[in-house]
Amino acid sequence: MTSAKDARPLPELCAEELDSLATSLREAHAAQAAKDVTLDVTRGKPSAAQLDLADEMLSLPRSTRDRSGTDVRNYGGLNGLAELRQIFAELLGVDVDQLIAGGNSSLTMMRDVLVDLLLFGAIDSPRPWSQEEKITFICPVPGYDRHFGLLEDLGIEMVTVPMTPDGPDVDEVARIAASDPSVKGMWIVPTYANPTGATCTQEVASRLAAMETAAPDFKILWDNAYAIHHLTPDETKSADILSLASSAGNPHRAVMFASTSKVTWAGAGVAFLASSPQQVKWYLAHLGKGSIGPDKVNQLRHVEFFGDADGVRAHMDKHRKILAPKFAEVDRVLAERLGGREVATWNAPTGGYFVNLDVLPGTASRVVALAKEAGLSLTPAGASFPYGTDPDDTNIRLAPTMPPMEELTEAMETVATCVLLAATEKLTARD
Amino acid sequence: MTSAKDARPLPELCAEELDSLATSLREAHAAQAAKDVTLDVTRGKPSAAQLDLADEMLSLPRSTRDRSGTDVRNYGGLNGLAELRQIFAELLGVDVDQLIAGGNSSLTMMRDVLVDLLLFGAIDSPRPWSQEEKITFICPVPGYDRHFGLLEDLGIEMVTVPMTPDGPDVDEVARIAASDPSVKGMWIVPTYANPTGATCTQEVASRLAAMETAAPDFKILWDNAYAIHHLTPDETKSADILSLASSAGNPHRAVMFASTSKVTWAGAGVAFLASSPQQVKWYLAHLGKGSIGPDKVNQLRHVEFFGDADGVRAHMDKHRKILAPKFAEVDRVLAERLGGREVATWNAPTGGYFVNLDVLPGTASRVVALAKEAGLSLTPAGASFPYGTDPDDTNIRLAPTMPPMEELTEAMETVATCVLLAATEKLTARD
Repeated sequence: MTSAKDARPLPELCAEELDSLATSLREAHAAQAAKDVTLDVTRGKPSAAQLDLADEMLSLPRSTRDRSGTDVRNYGGLNGLAELRQIFAELLGVDVDQLIAGGNSSLTMMRDVLVDLLLFGAIDSPRPWSQEEKITFICPVPGYDRHFGLLEDLGIEMVTVPMTPDGPDVDEVARIAASDPSVKGMWIVPTYANPTGATCTQEVASRLAAMETAAPDFKILWDNAYAIHHLTPDETKSADILSLASSAGNPHRAVMFASTSKVTWAGAGVAFLASSPQQVKWYLAHLGKGSIGPDKVNQLRHVEFFGDADGVRAHMDKHRKILAPKFAEVDRVLAERLGGREVATWNAPTGGYFVNLDVLPGTASRVVALAKEAGLSLTPAGASFPYGTDPDDTNIRLAPTMPPMEELTEAMETVATCVLLAATEKLTARD
Repeated sequence: MTSAKDARPLPELCAEELDSLATSLREAHAAQAAKDVTLDVTRGKPSAAQLDLADEMLSLPRSTRDRSGTDVRNYGGLNGLAELRQIFAELLGVDVDQLIAGGNSSLTMMRDVLVDLLLFGAIDSPRPWSQEEKITFICPVPGYDRHFGLLEDLGIEMVTVPMTPDGPDVDEVARIAASDPSVKGMWIVPTYANPTGATCTQEVASRLAAMETAAPDFKILWDNAYAIHHLTPDETKSADILSLASSAGNPHRAVMFASTSKVTWAGAGVAFLASSPQQVKWYLAHLGKGSIGPDKVNQLRHVEFFGDADGVRAHMDKHRKILAPKFAEVDRVLAERLGGREVATWNAPTGGYFVNLDVLPGTASRVVALAKEAGLSLTPAGASFPYGTDPDDTNIRLAPTMPPMEELTEAMETVATCVLLAATEKLTARD
């Protein structure tokens, strides 16, 4: 195989050189396909080794009462166990009274908030959102496919803004939010964003918190899924959006989400929601109509497992020791195979769960299709865009956390082969 | 205190006799208040002794993989663990493919279904319910307060029909459903109803399944919360509403709910939903937008704890041994104190969680107020009716499961005192 050492930019190759390269790439591709192995880097799932880190929870909790003496096995306690909320209030930098501990999915909390906004409107809404002619959300792209899927399902329109290394393009966000009262909110993954890895700076967060919006009830859905998911010892601090919004006179603008899905167990963790005290009350009022309280046994299980916030930090260090080498391996293979070729760029994230790969425009779908032929599942091209449509057909999200290291190496080699092969096809067709 | 042995009907007493009785009742009431103890029979909560029955679950599951080899700790598996669904499919008399195992609350599933009906409409709806001018639900009364609270929160109007010993007054239901296309559905607790204890007969269920409805998408929300919660060895069988509806040509009419909240742990159980295969698919499609799958670890915990359906049945026997004496004690005290007085009737349920007490019309609120003065919390009068309004101010729901036996006896003595005292006041005022 060609490696980056002798690599020349593909766009500079002549037709013959491209042909020759394509031939060797096709051989590599066919060889991988012939192996008949199944590789998967589609979703940001923790690996079995990461899940094992929390297996002490299998025999927890030891107690059945929380700190206040309440029997956690029974009904009630809508806002969640105080001691668990205290631990995560510290980690998320919010006041414990503003924080709710819920069920096993922050995504469910996000949907609940959106549904409540549609059916009832927020405390600062003139009317239920469903009574508006149109509701539009600002979606930084590339972004989290499930965020977009939620909006699409609920009939909320989407307008995109580019992600930058500092978070969403805040000039664009501010312009759109100020100009159109149908624009009622935005998504943001503020820390180690899915998939670009970017972290929203203090400055960008401040502007989002303070900007003029045409809608009086503009909501920032602040999905801090990777708040404590550092890949280096240099731990990026999340901007304090609730305080920023409050001090800017927009206390109800932000709703924060987080969870332990990528801390303890992906399917059996605890999700969190934080906002202004009044907005939390609004959320709980509707939640309480359809809930008998969260699973407090599982919440106590987490409390006993972590002990305190430092216990969570120590646990995340264990994840980092598993994950950092995987991300390094992705970077190593991509650099070795794609470096200098000028047909792909990618990031080396310092946290989170994804590597963002941008390939030669117009070839992302082809790369995904080629990968599939070789037994490698990639997230569908365009998944990181509303309606699954990447206008440039350039973006691919790589999720390297789940496969064991040997499989990951093989998967990245295959990605590289497919990226190069699709590029040669594209460049050949150009002529 | 007077006992039923020398009891004469209060309505037959002269003013002097009422006065004398009232004096002794006031003394008993004051004596109870002076004790300064707090008693509570408001909610259908399992007692600590019942919750203890499942404490083996504290150190389960032993495994982290389900029968198919899937790691239950990770994301996914929207419809729930197959082996748990198999156990409850047998117990609920439904096909395993029609049954979903979800989170810790069937109430949440009910709200999800109602929200989806409002936002999207059912598979047999001409349009989303929120686009109708008005949506009305038939509510058998007395009924479950949270059912009515859900509808009220969602802006769905309620029309009541009486509960009979055979289930809802099906003539009334059929008349209302046939005459008004805004009537889109009904609530029913088919087995050991909350609070009357009545079980819907096969005949009533058949008529509900087959009746003509003006709305093409009429839904029976069949909340089988007490399906297996027998208080006697004579186990009442629930009508098979899904088969009845299907064979009547209305396959999508019924949605069944159940849970282990009163089987294992009230706050940390598993909830179930069953309906036609197509309607289950509809439910999952929307659920999947806001869920990463249920807590499969907790589901596996339940599977290992129960083993199989017989394991659940054996477990319910243990509950019965705790609960049956409590219900007997309620009946004993009420019979002793209120028997022959002609100011109250109550039922002796053969299953479920409640005793339904009907007091002298116009006195239920007063009974609840008097009880509160004496340190006893009762469910607010009217709670079993939509909007919390009992037109006759006669119904009180007693929930005897939670307090230990001695407290229960004291609570029922207090109830009896308050019922009699409120009745003497009422009958005296009559003159």
